[in-house]
Amino acid sequence: MLPPGSTIGILGGGQLGRMMALAAAPLGLRVHVYAPEDESPAAEVAARHTRGGYDDRPALAAFAASVDAITYEFENVPAACAALLAGLKPVRPGPKALEVAQDRLTEKDFVRALGIGTAPYAAAATAEEARAAFAALGAKAAIVKTRRLGYDGKGQARVASAEEAAAAVAAFAAPCILEGLVAFRQEISVVAARGADGRIEAYDPVENRHREGILRETLAPARLGAGAGAEAWRIAGAILEALDYVGVIGVEMFALPGGGLLVNELAPRVHNSGHWTMDACAVSQFEQHVRAVAGWPLKPALRFADCAMENLIGDEVERWPAIAAEPNAALHLYGKGEARPGRKMGHVNRLFPMGGRP
Amino acid sequence: MLPPGSTIGILGGGQLGRMMALAAAPLGLRVHVYAPEDESPAAEVAARHTRGGYDDRPALAAFAASVDAITYEFENVPAACAALLAGLKPVRPGPKALEVAQDRLTEKDFVRALGIGTAPYAAAATAEEARAAFAALGAKAAIVKTRRLGYDGKGQARVASAEEAAAAVAAFAAPCILEGLVAFRQEISVVAARGADGRIEAYDPVENRHREGILRETLAPARLGAGAGAEAWRIAGAILEALDYVGVIGVEMFALPGGGLLVNELAPRVHNSGHWTMDACAVSQFEQHVRAVAGWPLKPALRFADCAMENLIGDEVERWPAIAAEPNAALHLYGKGEARPGRKMGHVNRLFPMGGRP
Repeated sequence: MLPPGSTIGILGGGQLGRMMALAAAPLGLRVHVYAPEDESPAAEVAARHTRGGYDDRPALAAFAASVDAITYEFENVPAACAALLAGLKPVRPGPKALEVAQDRLTEKDFVRALGIGTAPYAAAATAEEARAAFAALGAKAAIVKTRRLGYDGKGQARVASAEEAAAAVAAFAAPCILEGLVAFRQEISVVAARGADGRIEAYDPVENRHREGILRETLAPARLGAGAGAEAWRIAGAILEALDYVGVIGVEMFALPGGGLLVNELAPRVHNSGHWTMDACAVSQFEQHVRAVAGWPLKPALRFADCAMENLIGDEVERWPAIAAEPNAALHLYGKGEARPGRKMGHVNRLFPMGGRP
Repeated sequence: MLPPGSTIGILGGGQLGRMMALAAAPLGLRVHVYAPEDESPAAEVAARHTRGGYDDRPALAAFAASVDAITYEFENVPAACAALLAGLKPVRPGPKALEVAQDRLTEKDFVRALGIGTAPYAAAATAEEARAAFAALGAKAAIVKTRRLGYDGKGQARVASAEEAAAAVAAFAAPCILEGLVAFRQEISVVAARGADGRIEAYDPVENRHREGILRETLAPARLGAGAGAEAWRIAGAILEALDYVGVIGVEMFALPGGGLLVNELAPRVHNSGHWTMDACAVSQFEQHVRAVAGWPLKPALRFADCAMENLIGDEVERWPAIAAEPNAALHLYGKGEARPGRKMGHVNRLFPMGGRP
């Protein structure tokens, strides 16, 4: 257990790092943010900030020397950066989680190897492979995704023929994966944590609603059929165990009309679909993550209210005066300057009595 | 309403300023801490920090120029400092509250003028006046308190005769007040807020337990006789109105065996006996205060759990590993280095279901 006064290093200076830093402070833990930007939402509330690139080895080494443990707010930490840091200080979650989550093909192979379902998929690095993959999936439509570096719907294209698949892979000019479309009933996720002692705490599964590839709304708890909640927890737990994971993970799943679950994506970090825990649970995902990274015991991931989390994207943040006046709304703004289209500026958690969410 | 991106200036860099800064961040408000210390608990989580004395007029003017509204974490802000700042930017709560709360005699006169009871009291600036005051109180014992600058039991002495009273006033060598001892059943407090729009939100009255003049424990809610809770709210409300107050106030009271209430002390700021609100209420006293200072609407001061708040004083903070492992305990450490005797190092909020506190 890192004692109070220790320093957690965070790679990345966005809102997730900011909310981690705000959660670390009450535990008496200092935060050192490492990010390429000169100013950042996280740096504003952190004791220390280093501006540096993720390939700047001397700066990364100095950063590692100044902290007691290291975590990150985004899964695309370059492998060389993670390896360098992991040789100097504990990096949590560990490099294995990054390796799996950075490549959609590796991720799906990993999930399948655990006996957990995914959408049908096939790799395609060339136009020719894309045609073959589309045929192999045997679906009327598929999603072409770059294997690496996609987020918020970027690096994705929906295709309805082998030719469209070939064109998409050619346009991305990067190794891709084709995923067969799944007729799901709900998109859900489980945010769960595993402590350094192996204990797992999972929050209630939630339902997520996306628009244009960006999460818009999370409803807690998800209304699932009998047994699906326990199955979602079992899946998240199996993934945490297999990765020997320490920290919070977000596991996105499709809930099928027949009651089954397929894993869609892993996020080896605190997750947007866990923001509701800040106001509706005994411990937020951010404190839970900091506890895990610092080797502290986790807290029970208990929910005491229903919650609807709404992301404030771009100029939606201009609704802040009305939200500030809502009696049951907790506002969380990220301190970002310019409200560019598609930019996550904040979120609002609307609370309801247990069982009472709309 | 100050828009997100605005800056709140806070005088003082201790734990109260720190918790205000942590509450301001989710509202998108930046914090600039002004304090005499080079490093401080608040500065560590604030976007900006100025080291300066409360009599350093150029530094105070530059501070005022950099912020949009100003508040403070301690009531002993020098009057000249408050006046200078109030001429440059809104200072909330206003100078009137400071004037009343900085002098125990002024404070008691103010409370009495509202028709609210206090312990019997009499002023004494000299040994001779102390003898007369002790006699006038007609009590077997009294507390001699310096009129100004006392806190956490400092500047106080219990006396049992006119001669002891005279000696105490002579020893303090400062204008004093004698207060007759009150045979109270409980020490309670109400933490309440008044918004810039005049709306008042009061938290449930709580019971406070002191040792050696320092608050040790707050139990929420207080178990009061019929009508006493409403009367405590009425008293807090009358004081807020009379001061045309904006922000959070702590009103300490004695609950008498017969059911009556006497006001003991006002704290024109967030208050240690309101720390329980951080985990047991829909809005913490810190967010509520920041909302008031920024001209935002208050939120309903609703409680959703019972809570026992324990201060961690001096080396009590070394119990942190056990507290971190308690499932229903929320730990709040202040990031202070040295655990000196009597120093407030943190607090812990232990939650219980409504109606279930020990």
